[in-house]
Amino acid sequence: MPKKNIFIVYAHPEPRSLNGTLKDYAVNHLQDAGHTVEVSDLYAMNWRAEADSRDFPEHDPEKRLFYHSASKEAFLTDTQAPEIKAEQEKLKWMDALIIQCPMWWFSMPAILKGWVDRVYARRFAYGVGYHGYERYGAGNLKGKRALLSMTIGPEEAHYSERGVHGNIEDLLFPITHGILYYPGMDVLPPHLLYRAAALSPDGFAPVAETYRTRLEGLFTDEPISFRPQGGGEYDEQFRLKPGIADGKSGFAIHRRD
Amino acid sequence: MPKKNIFIVYAHPEPRSLNGTLKDYAVNHLQDAGHTVEVSDLYAMNWRAEADSRDFPEHDPEKRLFYHSASKEAFLTDTQAPEIKAEQEKLKWMDALIIQCPMWWFSMPAILKGWVDRVYARRFAYGVGYHGYERYGAGNLKGKRALLSMTIGPEEAHYSERGVHGNIEDLLFPITHGILYYPGMDVLPPHLLYRAAALSPDGFAPVAETYRTRLEGLFTDEPISFRPQGGGEYDEQFRLKPGIADGKSGFAIHRRD
Repeated sequence: MPKKNIFIVYAHPEPRSLNGTLKDYAVNHLQDAGHTVEVSDLYAMNWRAEADSRDFPEHDPEKRLFYHSASKEAFLTDTQAPEIKAEQEKLKWMDALIIQCPMWWFSMPAILKGWVDRVYARRFAYGVGYHGYERYGAGNLKGKRALLSMTIGPEEAHYSERGVHGNIEDLLFPITHGILYYPGMDVLPPHLLYRAAALSPDGFAPVAETYRTRLEGLFTDEPISFRPQGGGEYDEQFRLKPGIADGKSGFAIHRRD
Repeated sequence: MPKKNIFIVYAHPEPRSLNGTLKDYAVNHLQDAGHTVEVSDLYAMNWRAEADSRDFPEHDPEKRLFYHSASKEAFLTDTQAPEIKAEQEKLKWMDALIIQCPMWWFSMPAILKGWVDRVYARRFAYGVGYHGYERYGAGNLKGKRALLSMTIGPEEAHYSERGVHGNIEDLLFPITHGILYYPGMDVLPPHLLYRAAALSPDGFAPVAETYRTRLEGLFTDEPISFRPQGGGEYDEQFRLKPGIADGKSGFAIHRRD
């Protein structure tokens, strides 16, 4: 298998956590397979989650901050905060992104959301292309792969098709579709580990075995069949055209399966 | 109308923003109506978004941090970081919560997610009751009201039933259901302002008029008809029982309408 560049973004405050162990496992396994691995350990880096004018050192504090225009301006003039640029460079360099984090309140931890808010600059991750609408199957990260590896405290039934929290595929859609597919990545089905809090230290072997399979399929597994925006299935107002997924509702209409 | 206590959590880095204007408008309007208003301006407070061991000053750094158990321990022994306790006191004091923020990447800004991650302590917002499952229609914030007031950059069609980003009700479900309904609040339909970036300064009058109606209905408008977990509609594995919303799918099955 050809050697690849893999970027792991990892968000957990405790290095001895299950998330830390999964991150270490992935690093070791991927390096053993000959790949080059880069890790952004957001807590260890003291990543600042709060997006604000500090992201644009040249921004005049007397002037009202429009975050999206300041973001575009700073990206185009190479005046972004250096830690933002460094993360963008890793995203450009990589062939695949792995996100390792726990699910907190049906979403990602704030520190990781703040990585997205800040690193996903205008013209880099959105507002790309002549009309600014190269996304969902197009964009600057097109052709790269993405895998969300997430631990979840409770058991799977609570997140099943009729589970009280809402079904897990839909809960993760704002991440898989809205954050990973948006700038063009091919998104694999998430790697989910339920009942994470109840896992005993010697329960890691079967977990590692499952994860290993996913890591080995990083470049060969079938991505989620999200519909590309430019594939002729959406109208000029970016609505799914009549005749496609008729009579269906919810996020599932944006998948081809 | 009886005078009430209203808590506004506001998250925007720019005081001169539309979000700042909406927050100020709500404060003034609600105070003029005789209510007492408390505001947490997260950026002005330098709210730390990153949940970690600093939230539990008594936590022994030599010991592995299990965030949820440390959270419970600190909540029960009154040893949480003071800024966390202060926010919990406001949640106990209030009759209604208003969240004012922009939509960033199909969710809330990281600073606000970090408010949820840290303030929603175990035994306060989750793990409540004898079995730890008093939630969704029950919990410590039962009987209080919640209104999410959010600005959205693009236009409404893109978030419509068949819009490319996914429909807005489902995109907000992790917040309305997962964060606001979970600890027991009655959640009103969100107040959404599309094309926020394109709004000119003199375009605020009609916006204010619409928002005023929502503020005046804060205690009288009909909440979203989410199904309470303890209402007999879920089984012991917290799955919707057969016969309820049969043949339907997606988050909509968790509403009674």
